[in-house]
Amino acid sequence: MEYIFSDRVNTLKPSAIREIFKYASDPEVVSLSAGNPAPDAFPCKAVAEISAEIFSTRPIDALQYSVTEGYTPLRNHLKKYLKEKYNIGTEKDDLIITSGAQQIMDLATKSLCNEGDTVICEAPSFIGSLNTFRSYNAKLVGVPVESDGINTEILEEKLRTEKNIRFMYLIPNFQNPSGVTMSFEKRKKVYELARTYGVLILEDNPYGDLRYYGEDIPSIKSLDTDGIVIYSGSFSKVLSPGIRVGFCVAPSPIVQKMVVCKQGEDVHTNIWSQMVAYEFMTKYDFEGHLEMLRNLYRKKAQFMMDLLDEHLAPYVTYDKIDGGLFIMCRLPEHIDMLAFCKEAVLRKVCVVPGNAFLTDENEECHTFRVNFSTPTDEQLEKGVTILGKLVKELCEKGE
Amino acid sequence: MEYIFSDRVNTLKPSAIREIFKYASDPEVVSLSAGNPAPDAFPCKAVAEISAEIFSTRPIDALQYSVTEGYTPLRNHLKKYLKEKYNIGTEKDDLIITSGAQQIMDLATKSLCNEGDTVICEAPSFIGSLNTFRSYNAKLVGVPVESDGINTEILEEKLRTEKNIRFMYLIPNFQNPSGVTMSFEKRKKVYELARTYGVLILEDNPYGDLRYYGEDIPSIKSLDTDGIVIYSGSFSKVLSPGIRVGFCVAPSPIVQKMVVCKQGEDVHTNIWSQMVAYEFMTKYDFEGHLEMLRNLYRKKAQFMMDLLDEHLAPYVTYDKIDGGLFIMCRLPEHIDMLAFCKEAVLRKVCVVPGNAFLTDENEECHTFRVNFSTPTDEQLEKGVTILGKLVKELCEKGE
Repeated sequence: MEYIFSDRVNTLKPSAIREIFKYASDPEVVSLSAGNPAPDAFPCKAVAEISAEIFSTRPIDALQYSVTEGYTPLRNHLKKYLKEKYNIGTEKDDLIITSGAQQIMDLATKSLCNEGDTVICEAPSFIGSLNTFRSYNAKLVGVPVESDGINTEILEEKLRTEKNIRFMYLIPNFQNPSGVTMSFEKRKKVYELARTYGVLILEDNPYGDLRYYGEDIPSIKSLDTDGIVIYSGSFSKVLSPGIRVGFCVAPSPIVQKMVVCKQGEDVHTNIWSQMVAYEFMTKYDFEGHLEMLRNLYRKKAQFMMDLLDEHLAPYVTYDKIDGGLFIMCRLPEHIDMLAFCKEAVLRKVCVVPGNAFLTDENEECHTFRVNFSTPTDEQLEKGVTILGKLVKELCEKGE
Repeated sequence: MEYIFSDRVNTLKPSAIREIFKYASDPEVVSLSAGNPAPDAFPCKAVAEISAEIFSTRPIDALQYSVTEGYTPLRNHLKKYLKEKYNIGTEKDDLIITSGAQQIMDLATKSLCNEGDTVICEAPSFIGSLNTFRSYNAKLVGVPVESDGINTEILEEKLRTEKNIRFMYLIPNFQNPSGVTMSFEKRKKVYELARTYGVLILEDNPYGDLRYYGEDIPSIKSLDTDGIVIYSGSFSKVLSPGIRVGFCVAPSPIVQKMVVCKQGEDVHTNIWSQMVAYEFMTKYDFEGHLEMLRNLYRKKAQFMMDLLDEHLAPYVTYDKIDGGLFIMCRLPEHIDMLAFCKEAVLRKVCVVPGNAFLTDENEECHTFRVNFSTPTDEQLEKGVTILGKLVKELCEKGE
């Protein structure tokens, strides 16, 4: 039988970068392409204790059907925690627990976008979210990211000229893939623009707790007196991605629609994982755990930046990062970036070509993304050394 | 701000039955409206042991990111198990693990249906699935269910006359809500019709292992030599619904599209729960557990049918069930079914009005659904006694 698929999935073609990732499964390849937490980052002992406690005292609570909105103790605790710590959430907001933050992207798009409606994205942006927007046939409009965040002049131009814009998707902290953090000035400007043009903001903040240098900058959601910001948070980088727990704070009418959509997607999020998140936040030293993570990743981030300075300068440049898990490197313009990435993987180092993160993969692009949280220090050193040798070969040959 | 939602969620209006369910949270109300497993049905000790083993020997496997297709040992085991036990799956098929079977309905619709495309459903059918189809703006066409399954003459007429039919959604075993099981003759007929008209079948089988009387009937998927059946299975009724694990066997090209859609929905299903399902199936007496469940529910089902015979006959009729968790009752035509359900809830018994399960909720309807798996025997007796008294009042008043 010849299978006929929906238009929306027909637009989701396997991309050129898959060819590169195919090689990454080779155990000899140093993968700088993932975004997984470091093995040392997991509070294994705490999760083991919490699970044992749940299954010895109230197993059926963890195994029976539950409510779509999420485990009530976790919802209530997160509301209080986010309000007290980050001034996130007003009386007009509500909170829904989701199966990872990825589901927030899905539920928001499903609730808000008709096919053909426009979503404004940072360019580059997180490929997982871009693909979710694409899966609802949204039109993606990219606005360049600068070293202090999205270019607000171009953003305003797009807000003025594009039709049926339903929301703008922003990752203000340690953006994936650029590593860039949006300045407070720009956050205020973006919020004002959203208000002026009557466009919602979808603020994605998976890395906010992973700041290694400098001071926290208030989230856009903390400015939200008008009920125009949908805030997406996640336990993936601060507890475990395998448990698939995210949380969304948004105006109640939007959360209500997301609940209806979630009911039809997976009924509710795995309840054991919600109980684990709640117990870990309330019975363990969650702030101490975040501090441990920051210390762990600060060391790895600095080690990676030192390696890049040592092996890739002056040919390859990058913006220093203050947090998060990714660094975006820029090749000289005369180097063919895709050919570079392909040759790198043949030499057993896998990086992600920057065009993967663009709204149009065919745009000219000279960047590639590296991650430092997953590999060991030895792997980082080996990988960057190989990249450095390749860069020098290509650049010195070209001169 | 006035929020503008997508057309697809604007069609998902809160229905009239919500008004009735509001009362069901009253702890004094006997709820015959749920579909939860009985508290005794959960293998709590096994899950506790498995969790303890996972977190003492390989915690990071359960906490790290995993692959979208599902936990490989579970996928491989299910393929073998379904093939050997039920002759489900061919070389042209593949298997994806999902976040409950609800997600199979979602991923299939997302992959296969453009907005406005037609889905043929049994009438009545499972409300959760109908709402998922609606959430993609599919056009639902209902075909009546008879005591041996879907009316195949009307089905053929719809296949001949309706446009852009993408699949027919069927629950052949102990259908929710009707309790009806499709005969083998009709399964073969339905398969032939699907082949003739080039329409896929989405076969939903959450209750297949819960047969209390008679012989198993081969699934439609077991007839699938043409690659036209998408088979949906679930651990919700045989292990735990709270863990949210389902599995789908379908032609590989369809599974590939479902994987792409799932990537954008929740990346992958909670990995701990997949490991629990795998360990429970392979290291414990899974067949013995199924036998225990059948014994547990056979007793409750028979108790419920006896109660209905005692208290509701001759006014209320129903088809005896051979398995599953639901019984559909028919009121005499002169009784206003919705008024009956509302009065019942005021008298502290909650049942589900039959129109909730129709493709058009406004159709005339004289049925209501009762469940017997969740309440205790005492609650069943109390609930049916109250219903019986109400029925007699209404019927004898009307005579």
